[in-house]
Amino acid sequence: MNKNEIPYKIYLKEEEMPKQWYNVRADMKNKPAKLLNPATLQPVTEEELSNIFCKELVKQELDETNPYIDIPEQIREFYKMYRPSPLVRAYCLEKKLGTPAKIYYKFEGNNTSGSHKLNSAIAQAYYAKEQGLKGVTTETGAGQWGTALSMACSYFDLDCQVYMVKCSYEQKPFRREVMRTYGANVTPSPSESTEVGKKILAEHPGTTGSLGCAISEAVEAATTQEGYRYVLGSVLSQVLLHQSVIGLEALAALDKYGQKADIIIGCAGGGSNLGGLISPFMGQQLRGEAEYKFIAVEPASCPSLTRGVYAYDFCDTGKVCPLQKMYTLGSGFIPSPNHAGGLRYHGMSATLSQLYADGLMEARSVEQTAVFEAAEQFARVEGILPAPESSHAIRVAIDEALKCKETGEEKTIVFGLTGTGYFDMFAYEKFHDGKMSDYIPTDEELQASFAKLPKVDL
Amino acid sequence: MNKNEIPYKIYLKEEEMPKQWYNVRADMKNKPAKLLNPATLQPVTEEELSNIFCKELVKQELDETNPYIDIPEQIREFYKMYRPSPLVRAYCLEKKLGTPAKIYYKFEGNNTSGSHKLNSAIAQAYYAKEQGLKGVTTETGAGQWGTALSMACSYFDLDCQVYMVKCSYEQKPFRREVMRTYGANVTPSPSESTEVGKKILAEHPGTTGSLGCAISEAVEAATTQEGYRYVLGSVLSQVLLHQSVIGLEALAALDKYGQKADIIIGCAGGGSNLGGLISPFMGQQLRGEAEYKFIAVEPASCPSLTRGVYAYDFCDTGKVCPLQKMYTLGSGFIPSPNHAGGLRYHGMSATLSQLYADGLMEARSVEQTAVFEAAEQFARVEGILPAPESSHAIRVAIDEALKCKETGEEKTIVFGLTGTGYFDMFAYEKFHDGKMSDYIPTDEELQASFAKLPKVDL
Repeated sequence: MNKNEIPYKIYLKEEEMPKQWYNVRADMKNKPAKLLNPATLQPVTEEELSNIFCKELVKQELDETNPYIDIPEQIREFYKMYRPSPLVRAYCLEKKLGTPAKIYYKFEGNNTSGSHKLNSAIAQAYYAKEQGLKGVTTETGAGQWGTALSMACSYFDLDCQVYMVKCSYEQKPFRREVMRTYGANVTPSPSESTEVGKKILAEHPGTTGSLGCAISEAVEAATTQEGYRYVLGSVLSQVLLHQSVIGLEALAALDKYGQKADIIIGCAGGGSNLGGLISPFMGQQLRGEAEYKFIAVEPASCPSLTRGVYAYDFCDTGKVCPLQKMYTLGSGFIPSPNHAGGLRYHGMSATLSQLYADGLMEARSVEQTAVFEAAEQFARVEGILPAPESSHAIRVAIDEALKCKETGEEKTIVFGLTGTGYFDMFAYEKFHDGKMSDYIPTDEELQASFAKLPKVDL
Repeated sequence: MNKNEIPYKIYLKEEEMPKQWYNVRADMKNKPAKLLNPATLQPVTEEELSNIFCKELVKQELDETNPYIDIPEQIREFYKMYRPSPLVRAYCLEKKLGTPAKIYYKFEGNNTSGSHKLNSAIAQAYYAKEQGLKGVTTETGAGQWGTALSMACSYFDLDCQVYMVKCSYEQKPFRREVMRTYGANVTPSPSESTEVGKKILAEHPGTTGSLGCAISEAVEAATTQEGYRYVLGSVLSQVLLHQSVIGLEALAALDKYGQKADIIIGCAGGGSNLGGLISPFMGQQLRGEAEYKFIAVEPASCPSLTRGVYAYDFCDTGKVCPLQKMYTLGSGFIPSPNHAGGLRYHGMSATLSQLYADGLMEARSVEQTAVFEAAEQFARVEGILPAPESSHAIRVAIDEALKCKETGEEKTIVFGLTGTGYFDMFAYEKFHDGKMSDYIPTDEELQASFAKLPKVDL
């Protein structure tokens, strides 16, 4: 097909939108390891999980066999409000780089939550409503997930209780106000509203909180209030399932114009975006139908895939959630202050970890200043102001395109542009003022953290 | 056509996008009055205007005869990066209101500037580049225009000097950082960098600036630097011309699905969005091809159409720009603090003023609290967090839809959703906290302002 026939933005028609999510675990030869109960360190049961999570979501979490799961009608209706998201051909970036590579990005930022998080938030809110719950609880750090969940709960008229890491609550008042606009109850964490919060405040009176602490408060709030469950925006297999809508749309859009990806790139924190983007492509590869090069990009300050160990670990620092086997830096690892808030997670989705362990995916870590350089370069030619998280993928996409310039190869590069940076201008300001720092943990720091990993004997 | 066949979002295909702008003045029987030179109060010449504005833009400003003007190829390429904007069917809002009315909105917020301003910014930057200029100067209040112009100048590698009203510069540091990301030079106004700025600072040492003052500085900077011109984001006829892309796309999208609008609603500050949205529809009406009800919505705190006088007035408080005949509250009128920053303008586009004077358009003023109530209601069902400016149109669209509910009429309502409110969360916070105030100027205040209008004798 002639290059000029491919539009700047490929939008699927409503009737071309996916009607089923794709569950990559069904096609994996080596399945992700079982989740463990944090109290017993033994495989967790469906019943145990159902005390914390919604029933239908627990089923999805444990489902390793069904490749396709129907997207309920009401979720598909909601998707139509902000999806399909465009697959954009980065003509201007290609021209600026002078590369023969064809660059595409799947842009998930055109909704008020500002990221792909809404894809799973609406699904989780739907199942909570179906179960007859009053509401859900969650934590949020950078704020994208909390915003997405607020929007989803508002749509289904569910109560939404968000524990927001106190320093974010104070530094990002605008994020908080967006959540309030959607009727969410936002509490700075740690708070006096939970036992665990009170305990942490008594021990560390001046603390500005952490994601681990906020998770612990949210889980306590879910399990001590009648009619509530806890929901999580990343890491879990159910989240990757819902996020597969990203990859399914991207694949359909490429197919529509007879294009085939060579390299697929995504930023990786807990893995929600990367897993969702690559799943259907990985499925083709697992079934022997196509071959791709997959690249996970993580911050050098929090390099779980590139420098972590593959072991059982707690998903949260509070140690209240199930354990999973994953690439981890240790649940006690505290990343240096890094503005790409959504990528500051010590572990990685169990599914992605297994794929990486099996050599089916590559990983790279990049430093923050180089990431913001790529972000600014991208913004100036493509118009979109990217989130710092998404910009990790931009960095590697540009690097790969420049390699093609050297070799003359016309590779097709697809990357996930997860969201916009409107609420991250403090970080951009630091970058403009030359005050951004790059920090890479030392081997000693990592070894000290690995030493504290739980001893699991199965 | 069956209601269910109309998708949530109508996107035109690239090849369906407008190739020409529409100039409504060509179809107007009564043309807008001529612009006047502020020094002589006599009709301004093309040559005089060319000292301030780019040559080609001056031609467009004075063109009352050509109905269609070609959109240059490079502008059309840029449009493809963020256009076509979707015409959205507000199914969820209709359901929530229980109205038989069909509600559509043309959403212009899916670009980094967050509003429709980019449509004219890219055109103005293009003509500046074509003229071989080094750069352009402008002022910005709320920041949308400054951001849009920064993006446009970055694309064409033009220097961009933005004078930002000092209180906005301080209260909206994130807007400033977005502009810096696109390489703009942002100066808080009044500043020491211009003679007029120095003078104002000497007279009012603690001033936090005003739009009028920022315009004066930007015009001085344009006329005293070699290779610079001044550009403006609203009010002017050239801006309405460029913004006609909004209405042309909306009309094409409705036509594509066999729909016909009955009521067309837009918020009105200087008139850039409203004029752009209604132009092609108004053209049909002026040519006797169709009939519509057009409603301009303005804030009760700054009611130029509903309570102003139709007279010659200065476009800026600094009295350096040409005068035009328009509905005005007087160039010295200072609106009460109102968070819908983009609508705090004392006058109105000359074209829209003439159409209003001829009875071809209605106008309504609405109070701020009612506007934010509509904004929040809209956000919760339609997902998009609207800008306060845009929410004026939402308020009246909801009012009209509720009237249909009473009468049972299935009218088709189309309104302009000009942008997103991500940088307006201070205002939302005030609303959530019940600290928002409604202020309406008294008749005495307006009469005192009218008394200071210039005496024009033509």
